[in-house]
Amino acid sequence: MSKLHLGLFINPTGQHMAGWRHPEVPSDFPVNFQAYLEMARQAEAESFDFVFLADGEAVKAGRWTPESLSRTASRFVAQFEPFTLLSALAVTTRSIGLVSTASATLGEPYRIARQLASLDLLSKGRAGWNVVTSYEADVRANFAHLPPIDIADRYRRSAEMVEVVKGLWNSWEKDAFIRDKESGRYYDPARLHALNHKGEFFEVRGPLNVPPSEQGRPGIFVAGSSPEGQEIAAAHAEGMFTALSDLSSARKFYTEVKGRMAAHGRAPDELRIMPGLVPFVGETRAEAEARQKQLDELVHPAVALQHFSFVLGGADLSKFDLDKPLPADFIAEQSEKSTRQRQVLQIALHAGHTLRQMCVLSTRAKGHVTALGTGADVADLMQEWFEAKGCDGFTLMPATTPPAFDDFARFVMPELRRRKLVPEAYGTSPTLRGNLAR
Amino acid sequence: MSKLHLGLFINPTGQHMAGWRHPEVPSDFPVNFQAYLEMARQAEAESFDFVFLADGEAVKAGRWTPESLSRTASRFVAQFEPFTLLSALAVTTRSIGLVSTASATLGEPYRIARQLASLDLLSKGRAGWNVVTSYEADVRANFAHLPPIDIADRYRRSAEMVEVVKGLWNSWEKDAFIRDKESGRYYDPARLHALNHKGEFFEVRGPLNVPPSEQGRPGIFVAGSSPEGQEIAAAHAEGMFTALSDLSSARKFYTEVKGRMAAHGRAPDELRIMPGLVPFVGETRAEAEARQKQLDELVHPAVALQHFSFVLGGADLSKFDLDKPLPADFIAEQSEKSTRQRQVLQIALHAGHTLRQMCVLSTRAKGHVTALGTGADVADLMQEWFEAKGCDGFTLMPATTPPAFDDFARFVMPELRRRKLVPEAYGTSPTLRGNLAR
Repeated sequence: MSKLHLGLFINPTGQHMAGWRHPEVPSDFPVNFQAYLEMARQAEAESFDFVFLADGEAVKAGRWTPESLSRTASRFVAQFEPFTLLSALAVTTRSIGLVSTASATLGEPYRIARQLASLDLLSKGRAGWNVVTSYEADVRANFAHLPPIDIADRYRRSAEMVEVVKGLWNSWEKDAFIRDKESGRYYDPARLHALNHKGEFFEVRGPLNVPPSEQGRPGIFVAGSSPEGQEIAAAHAEGMFTALSDLSSARKFYTEVKGRMAAHGRAPDELRIMPGLVPFVGETRAEAEARQKQLDELVHPAVALQHFSFVLGGADLSKFDLDKPLPADFIAEQSEKSTRQRQVLQIALHAGHTLRQMCVLSTRAKGHVTALGTGADVADLMQEWFEAKGCDGFTLMPATTPPAFDDFARFVMPELRRRKLVPEAYGTSPTLRGNLAR
Repeated sequence: MSKLHLGLFINPTGQHMAGWRHPEVPSDFPVNFQAYLEMARQAEAESFDFVFLADGEAVKAGRWTPESLSRTASRFVAQFEPFTLLSALAVTTRSIGLVSTASATLGEPYRIARQLASLDLLSKGRAGWNVVTSYEADVRANFAHLPPIDIADRYRRSAEMVEVVKGLWNSWEKDAFIRDKESGRYYDPARLHALNHKGEFFEVRGPLNVPPSEQGRPGIFVAGSSPEGQEIAAAHAEGMFTALSDLSSARKFYTEVKGRMAAHGRAPDELRIMPGLVPFVGETRAEAEARQKQLDELVHPAVALQHFSFVLGGADLSKFDLDKPLPADFIAEQSEKSTRQRQVLQIALHAGHTLRQMCVLSTRAKGHVTALGTGADVADLMQEWFEAKGCDGFTLMPATTPPAFDDFARFVMPELRRRKLVPEAYGTSPTLRGNLAR
């Protein structure tokens, strides 16, 4: 039976909005390579499948004012660009996968294919692409001279993008490079293939000017949970990252996505569904709760309100009572916006939270499941989800980086190992896809 | 008086077409990170200002057939992508500048600004951008879905691109990030500036989501020699890379470019003109000549002919006699194509070379000046160009990597140091622009 898979989402200011204010957090983490390196090496010491980075081609202000934004330390304010950062990690780590988000909406397939293939070579087969279909106004504004993209087309566009990128990764067969000094033959032209793609959105001739790595091609992740995203994942992905907040929706999601794979000729185990998990761990439950409370208290209420508005795509929340649940008609209106927002609001409805509670919750876990307690408590939740087929593992999203991850490594990992739920070690020549197939 | 500046152009298959067939060359250099790292560290040990990488978003076949291309090992066949490669070098070197070429014709200013700024942070201020305006058919074919770019506009487009990129690099003032845990103030909104650029070619709002590095912003290089390129260099660049094959044209070029700077409010020393130099060095002249001859003999004549045709933008040379100079009317017709081609052909005309000789020459130095002989011979040529104001230094283009560079380090560097022409060491906190200002 396959093991419970673990990845680490490195949010340099922590998953919790006030994470950067924690006393043990290096406040310059977003531009501190050493801080990233230490976390990646620690995840590697725990035999994690991968580290995972978000991305966005803008300071994502949304409707934030510069004044209020200046108190959030959002990862979207200013930080390393992920391909450059992961390339630096590629030559300073050995076994852990390196997954970067890149938008399939605005990106160019040749550039995405090329940078990932190069990262894959530098890391000896440990690169992965997390495909997202986002297209925020803040990003659009930095590329406003480009022809407009119809937002309604974005999933078809992403699906075609993935096809083109995968096609470019097949430009050179495995043994295409001969490099024989004697005969002067550098490569075998019969093993070089142009793509000659002409589709609805892209026209790309190829071939790619980067040869394949030890894993053949980079791994593919899909983030999100829309039916269209599920379909791309079922067809192409080795990993799926998503926000799921309770086991029953996780099981439904898991069954649905895995059920789509057979039509693409794929076995269920070829894709690992690894939703986000925000752990608060302590030696005792009281200690774990105190850790969460300490962070909650560091968020200014007005900033929390604005953040929740941001989560909802910029909705105006100022007219609502902080101590009552959001009105049903407002929720219905918001639900049309995106699957992610629909999920967040379903949680609110379900739990009967007040707006104030929702705001605090939104700064904590941002729609992902929280596991709070001792090492055994957190391991229990993980084991339950895993064995009930709610997931194949988790993408950890520590509230603070690195303290909340340190706690996880110290208290939860020994428990998971004792239960023989996680793999003991990497293979002899670790690749990202190899790690995921353990 | 400022010193003679040195940079190293790392062509992973060597500047000479048959460079990769040299017995001491690792034939997988284009995908061998360790090989790049060793060369970069050796250049760093010699206190070079920078290493420099070419780039192209295509397998640049031109009119080559797959069969003949498979014998060239051109750097444009398959290799690391430069931003990922330099990011890996950023965290494994300490002092040397890291300059990457990126086309200003097809690139997106936000992406170029962002990746360079991130490389600049990773390297603690050692990144540089070499601006080129190329727009080959092979590259266009990989982005054929994008709106067409009028080739006649490319210099105006590049000039605007450089303005936008520099503008984005000014998004955050030096002390914009406060990161004060106590007050919860992450940055000072008064020190964050959106660009709001709306120009002829680009509309980019900004701000950039990467803060400035130790050197404030990456260095700017311009490659090429057209009057339009000279103007961009005079206005913006700290470094200029170009192909100059004799001292008299070098002096003319130097005077012309430096003469353009005052109009932009810049002093001549703010820009270092560093033409390519292909050294063949031995303990004796005979040894240096033997090294060149050994390489020449490794090039297949038909491949050499095709390469020269490629240098001329794909001109059909099959109709000409290999043992006669090219006809004057053919040269006149070709000269309209680009400044680079005009230069190459002027050399041919000037020297009365036969087509066969030109073909061999084209595979050797590719239009750049060759310095052949002992350490003292090569140092003589360099000193002469430097003191006669033909250049501020050189960008070394070793025929083989690493052997021809090893020879240079072994025989020429001690001679340059003895003459006190080159700086002894880096400053205490080396940055690319700091290195160039020594």
